Amino acid sequence: MSAYLKLEKIFKKVSNLGGAMAVLSWDSATMMPLGGGKERSEQLATLDSVCHEILSSNEISDLLDEAESNKNRLDDWQVANLRNMRHEWKHVTALDNSLVEKLSKAASKCELIWRTARHENDFKNYAKYLTPVLELTREAANAKAEIFGCSPYDAMLDQYDPYRKSEEIDKIFHDLESFLPTFIQTVTEQQKEHPEITPLRGKFSVAKQNELGTRLMEQFGFDFNHGRLDTSHHPFCGGIPDDIRITTRYDESDFTSSLMGVLHETGHAMYENGLPKKWRGQPVGEALGMSIHESQSLLIEMQVCRSRDFLIYATPIIAEIFSNENNIWEASNLHRIYNKVEAGLIRVDADEVTYPAHIIMRYRIEKALISGDMEVNDIPHAWNTAMKELLDVDVPDDRNGCMQDIHWADGSFGYFPTYTLGAIHAAQFFNQAKKDDPEITYGIKRGDFSPLINWLGYNIHSQGSKLSTNDLLIKVTGESLNIDIYKNYLRNRYLS
Amino acid sequence: MSAYLKLEKIFKKVSNLGGAMAVLSWDSATMMPLGGGKERSEQLATLDSVCHEILSSNEISDLLDEAESNKNRLDDWQVANLRNMRHEWKHVTALDNSLVEKLSKAASKCELIWRTARHENDFKNYAKYLTPVLELTREAANAKAEIFGCSPYDAMLDQYDPYRKSEEIDKIFHDLESFLPTFIQTVTEQQKEHPEITPLRGKFSVAKQNELGTRLMEQFGFDFNHGRLDTSHHPFCGGIPDDIRITTRYDESDFTSSLMGVLHETGHAMYENGLPKKWRGQPVGEALGMSIHESQSLLIEMQVCRSRDFLIYATPIIAEIFSNENNIWEASNLHRIYNKVEAGLIRVDADEVTYPAHIIMRYRIEKALISGDMEVNDIPHAWNTAMKELLDVDVPDDRNGCMQDIHWADGSFGYFPTYTLGAIHAAQFFNQAKKDDPEITYGIKRGDFSPLINWLGYNIHSQGSKLSTNDLLIKVTGESLNIDIYKNYLRNRYLS
Repeated sequence: MSAYLKLEKIFKKVSNLGGAMAVLSWDSATMMPLGGGKERSEQLATLDSVCHEILSSNEISDLLDEAESNKNRLDDWQVANLRNMRHEWKHVTALDNSLVEKLSKAASKCELIWRTARHENDFKNYAKYLTPVLELTREAANAKAEIFGCSPYDAMLDQYDPYRKSEEIDKIFHDLESFLPTFIQTVTEQQKEHPEITPLRGKFSVAKQNELGTRLMEQFGFDFNHGRLDTSHHPFCGGIPDDIRITTRYDESDFTSSLMGVLHETGHAMYENGLPKKWRGQPVGEALGMSIHESQSLLIEMQVCRSRDFLIYATPIIAEIFSNENNIWEASNLHRIYNKVEAGLIRVDADEVTYPAHIIMRYRIEKALISGDMEVNDIPHAWNTAMKELLDVDVPDDRNGCMQDIHWADGSFGYFPTYTLGAIHAAQFFNQAKKDDPEITYGIKRGDFSPLINWLGYNIHSQGSKLSTNDLLIKVTGESLNIDIYKNYLRNRYLS
Repeated sequence: MSAYLKLEKIFKKVSNLGGAMAVLSWDSATMMPLGGGKERSEQLATLDSVCHEILSSNEISDLLDEAESNKNRLDDWQVANLRNMRHEWKHVTALDNSLVEKLSKAASKCELIWRTARHENDFKNYAKYLTPVLELTREAANAKAEIFGCSPYDAMLDQYDPYRKSEEIDKIFHDLESFLPTFIQTVTEQQKEHPEITPLRGKFSVAKQNELGTRLMEQFGFDFNHGRLDTSHHPFCGGIPDDIRITTRYDESDFTSSLMGVLHETGHAMYENGLPKKWRGQPVGEALGMSIHESQSLLIEMQVCRSRDFLIYATPIIAEIFSNENNIWEASNLHRIYNKVEAGLIRVDADEVTYPAHIIMRYRIEKALISGDMEVNDIPHAWNTAMKELLDVDVPDDRNGCMQDIHWADGSFGYFPTYTLGAIHAAQFFNQAKKDDPEITYGIKRGDFSPLINWLGYNIHSQGSKLSTNDLLIKVTGESLNIDIYKNYLRNRYLS
């Protein structure tokens, strides 16, 4: 067997273990009784260490060298697969085990403390546990920076969005920074002139909401023979491409947020399920990175499902399912609900227009934290200043300010920008999709999403990680990330 | 770190992987969409091979030798743990990988074929796939026989019931064989004189049945912070001691079978959860074997829950939960339902009295199959003859005869006897328990099972696998397995 084929076998094994971890993590969030938590952590830690052992063995290193020297015998998918194997291998072997273990322990502890410290608005206590997480993350970032030949922060980015550089993000975010404050103001002013939102009244039972979510998921082509919808505290899309587990949470007094959550996760799910079947279990068969993943969920949620066209289609279905409640169902009212812009304190509650501001300030802060330009104790001041500057919002306390997210507590520095990069990619992809196939727009109006899903499947999902994000963008849309398309989309959606 | 402590660390790792497999298997049976099956099999196969690799490494072999030569430094639990590690290691290393793989593949294929062949009553097709399973099992049995210095069939037994010998089973089953046919006839004759069973009418909704099961599980002390009750096609008790997943199946026209199923699995669950906390993840902390495991489920189901005392306590609860249905709820009627004896074709539907006959004939046949005294094609004749001899039942077809069980198809030879050995152990333990603490009997009458669970916890559950089954029996009841206690129990239950 060639070195390359041996590598395929080993990476498939690691992928099987990763798949097991994905299902166990889903179970932890949806099914597991609380008392199972301790053992579950140990199971996941063991699986993690087994994967780490396999990937960091000398055998892999030798096989990678050998396969690379025989690269001319491989086809272009195999070459891409080998490149991705090397990339994954570099990340795994960049850190020595003791650092990985220390970081994982510090992050677990900090995450645990964060839950109560946030509740008690106790930044001091949180800071005590965040400091070692940051210090160890800096150490990891420096080690990876050396391996990848980039800045420490870029090495962190690369974990979630391979080959992404902060230089590019800086440019895009700089543009957005100057665009957003005025734009937000204009939109909110203009929305004051709109008819008032009629609040939805009544009890929207979990069973009915589940029925609605399931029906729309099916309409998008979600295959329940290869997936499920369940309930968890925080919505997510988990599992593996052939067994996708999406979750939502329900509020019986308001179905709107849960419904959009389900449709958002359906976008993630369609991506996972549409990844190239031939490359299941291989690095090149995996999703390209978090920006592209988020582009797929935001394309479905923001570009499609919050649009007037979609809401005109969906309102009768919503009305039918909640027919026991005495609401007057109007697409225009749902459209106002789903497109209301209002600056607020909390990122996860933010609308599409103010959301990027939340991301930009986190990006600024985490970049400064990793470079050493900022320390943990500087966070609250930096946070509150940025909130004022970008959103004109006064932060009353850290609970509703710099302690609202789990990301830094659990060591996920470099993740935040992918949310907004995803939104910008989504606009660019959807813009191109509508140009490529006019049926997409007509389809959405009548609830036939197959032209859209086919376009996404062909152009994005089935490409796996064969190309880099930038090469994929150029291949599909003819250009690199273009912030103007995103700004135009926002103008069209919110100022027309 | 001493060799022994190194071994503890490695076995904990294997236990974590085993726990992950247990949850994944539970998920396959309860939650997984069908389309996830292929990848799930691969995940489980990978985990299995990782465990096998770890346990069959040279490192373990050296550590076992070293730890055994320093045994005098260990306490008695550690000595028992080391003995069990060696025992597990012998099973794992007895077979070479290619045989394990061939057997696993042949069994998977045969199990798959069995599902349709059984449905189509096609023994010929089944036999074609069972033959290689049997041949490979014989090969495995011979290899293990050499390692353990016992007969090939005893080596198979040892996988499910460590240190069990067929010589002992022969004696016990021989005794039962001469007891059962007359006893069954006497009981069925006598039951004809009883008042007729009033059939239960109405719809027993899944939700209400679940409520009933949950309520009685709680009454037995099942800790829902460390476990769940779900639905699957075949009821089982899975998961890990700190996160026990029991399942049942529901028939809305008859709740009685599902309820006893839940209580049976609760018996398994209480055993798992009561295993010594200090030894979680170590071989000595695991259940002792399938006979003892089955003794714990059958003690709860047969000895306790099908008794008049329990049914007098439970009938008002059942009546309350199913109050919407117009039944006349009488404990005596439920008692007649739950203790009805009638020879039939199907093992899993058999009552307590005829059940051992089903086991004895399977034991005879599988022993002859492993020794080579019988071939696959001889099974139907041997089956039908034994059914006539032991139960006076004519077998109309193989579907309702020798093709009814999954066990042989999936290579589980040596498992069947543990069902009836479990029943005999259950009678002996319960007999002793009632002698040791009269509160146990009084408690059952009023639904206070804590004296019983405490007795079981102290005497059996908390002992893990420290002693052999026989030594545990002697320690707890003062004697080895005594078939007379079981026969007396049957006489008291069914002829009084």
